Order: sequence, then C-alpha cells, then structure tokens
Amino acid sequence: MADQPIIVLVRPQLGENIGKAARAMLNFGLTEMRIVAPRDGWPNPSAGPSAAGADIVLDQAKIFGTTAEAVADCSHIYATTVRKREDAKPVVTPEAAAIEMHTRPGRSAILFGREASGLDTQDVAMASAILTVPINPEFGSLNLAQAVILCAYEWSKSQALVQPTLDKELPPAPQQDLDGLITHFEELLEPKGYFLPETRAEATKRTLRNVLTRPRWNHLEVRTLRGVLSSLARSNRS
Amino acid sequence: MADQPIIVLVRPQLGENIGKAARAMLNFGLTEMRIVAPRDGWPNPSAGPSAAGADIVLDQAKIFGTTAEAVADCSHIYATTVRKREDAKPVVTPEAAAIEMHTRPGRSAILFGREASGLDTQDVAMASAILTVPINPEFGSLNLAQAVILCAYEWSKSQALVQPTLDKELPPAPQQDLDGLITHFEELLEPKGYFLPETRAEATKRTLRNVLTRPRWNHLEVRTLRGVLSSLARSNRS
Repeated sequence: MADQPIIVLVRPQLGENIGKAARAMLNFGLTEMRIVAPRDGWPNPSAGPSAAGADIVLDQAKIFGTTAEAVADCSHIYATTVRKREDAKPVVTPEAAAIEMHTRPGRSAILFGREASGLDTQDVAMASAILTVPINPEFGSLNLAQAVILCAYEWSKSQALVQPTLDKELPPAPQQDLDGLITHFEELLEPKGYFLPETRAEATKRTLRNVLTRPRWNHLEVRTLRGVLSSLARSNRS
Repeated sequence: MADQPIIVLVRPQLGENIGKAARAMLNFGLTEMRIVAPRDGWPNPSAGPSAAGADIVLDQAKIFGTTAEAVADCSHIYATTVRKREDAKPVVTPEAAAIEMHTRPGRSAILFGREASGLDTQDVAMASAILTVPINPEFGSLNLAQAVILCAYEWSKSQALVQPTLDKELPPAPQQDLDGLITHFEELLEPKGYFLPETRAEATKRTLRNVLTRPRWNHLEVRTLRGVLSSLARSNRS
C-alpha cells in the first residue's frame, strides 16, 4: 500500500487553524504534517486546544524554512488552489488525486497556502499538479481545515478501493533531484543572457521550472539530462 | 434534476456552529437550512460572523419546534450518526446517500444532532436511513460543520457542478515539433562527443528520445525548450 500523503501547510498564520487541520487529518487517518515558516513560530500554544485531541499530529509535525525543503523527498506534489491559474499543469479533483496517490509509487505531498491568500506562485510552480475542489462558483469560501478534511476524506475513501501499488514503474525523482536539474539549467543559461531582461527573469525562470516539472522524470532520466547538460557545456571536439 | 437536500440542524447549541454549517452548505450549493429548537433562540447574533458571507442561507432558514414538523414534507430522511446504532435501518455513506438523493423522486432531508451528543433516539427513529461518515475508528472527532460539509460535498460531486479551474489543457505538440526538438538536441550534442563511443550511439539516442517523449509537452513548451537550446549554443556574454 502506498504511503499516506504528507499535508504541508505553507506559511500558516493562526495556530488555531493548524490545530483544526490536524484534527481534520486524523479524522481520516492522516498523521504526517509539515509546516513551512509558520508566522507565529512553533510550537504554537493555540494549536493544541483546536486539535481536539489530535495531539499526535501536532507533536510529530516537522518545521521547515522553505517549501522546497519541506517537499525535498516527495515525488508527487499537489498545490491546492481555488482561483484559476494560468500554469500549464494538470488540474485534478481531490478524488482523482486520492486515487493517484494510492496507485503511484513515491511519496505524495499536498501543499496548502496561508489562510488569507493561498499559495504563492513560487510554491505552485513546484507542484506537478493543481488540486482543486469543485466548489460553488458563486460562493467559494473554503477554509484551511475544510480543504484539508476533503482531501483526507477522499484519501481515506479510496484507500479501501484501490489495488496494491504497481511497483514496476520507477517513481518520479525526488524533488531535490529535480531542483538540481533546474539549477543546472539556470547556471548554464544565466551567462548566455537567457534570463534578460532582468525584469522578466523571474517569470522566465518560472516558465522553465514548469516545463521541467511536467515530465515527472524518474531519477535515471534526470541523471541522463544532467549528463546532457554537462556535455552541452563542454567545448566542441575539434 | 432532483431538488437539493434540506439540512436540518436538530437542537443546535452554538450560533457560531449554525453559521459554520451555513458556510459549509453554500460552498457546495446547498441553501435550504431548517433548525429545530435552537438552544439560544433565533436569530442568533453569533451565527452571521461565522457564516463568512453565507447570509442567504441564514436569512432563509426556517425554524421548527420539533423534528417531525421540520421534515413533514420530506420523503427521504437521513439521520447522521457517528456511533454504531442498533436500529434496523440501512446504513449509507455520504456518497451513496448523495446518489440516492439525486435519483429518487421526493425531497430529502439530512438530520444533524446537537454538537455535544448528536441525535436523540427519537430523531433517529424518524429516519429512513442512517448516514455515517467512515471515519478513523481510533479518532472520530467530526464536528457539526465538518459533517455538513462532507455531505454537501458529496451531493455537489454527484451533481457535477462546473469545475471553475478546469481549463482546456493544450494538447501535446505534434510529432514533427517534438522531432524538431530532438534533432536540435542531437545536433548540439554530436560535436560534444555525447554519442560516443559509436557502438553505443543508437542506444544513447533512443534513451534521449524516450526522456524527451515522456513529458508530452505542448507546442508552447517545445518552443520554450528550443529557445533554451539556442541560448545554450551561444557563447557566454563577456
């Protein structure tokens, strides 16, 4: 059986909401929470009371400085969003994501943004898919714990249905391998002036990241591409 | 299309929870709330703020003295419970209930009990079925709004509400575009000696093609990568 998905709260604001998310998770058997740069530090005394007994989730929560570090060991990264995005990434429902998480090898993480504004573009760029709850188009007001509980609920539901993991296929490379490849590209392209003008540099880098994230290459494929880049950087043989 | 189910809150205690239930409902398009004997009377000033804008649900809520009056016009009555019941009634999941509600003629109502203790035996007796969320047996701590949102979500799912973020995804680029990209890679790599030794050249080319075929990039992504390659082929800017 596939591992359970990791719930990653990115820059959450209120401890109370972290506690509610923990409670939502444990209701459906999820126990692995990671928190990126919580606004009010950690541990947060407001989290416990609202967890309503889900202390095991809070006690085992891991804290990270950046989203990249939090998902470094994950192969499948879902970014939850409500608003429409321009990125060319597959959009999945909680139900479809749950089935994928059960049937694909490699660890999955689901990113949830801060209460007020959701995930940054940077965080979304890191994801291989967008997870969106199909909500009332005239009243989209899903809070953090509600979004978490719907994902946890679907995961728990599909757990009973799916077949054991197919382990013939190699899982996508861990995020840190992919980051290494992206950095390699950037380091070669920088001196060529590819990211100029400076004002467009960030957008250009994001586009490149999106293009390279989509394939979901495994570690052998990433290694092949690293070899390609090293080769391209060499002088031509005379 | 079948009418939407009526959400019946039986003797709710806190106005705040009534507001949260209204918000949960409207997120998935449910607008009909009925309240049986709310402890603190009605209207309740604590309900509005926690409804987060779902005022239409609260404004139209109808108040009843007894559960029997609240469901008098309904054909299908579901009693939500967490604990095991002895009653000889069919037990259904939120998903199965949602499908029934869409396919059976006659109005449906879902009864939710008070926060502390759930539904009375009397209320359950009135129901034609028991609706139970399959929860973590070691940590069942679903609050009122969470129970409501899961039922509303399943109802909405089976109704196939329009998914706001689902864009027309671009199709993979035509094969000739992909071939152009692969040829571009090969032309740059050839003079670097990447395909040496000669005996391995064919296998190496096949590996590269496989790696580049997997992503199923669209034509914009292929164009981005062509730009990357052209850039890599240039001399560094001094």
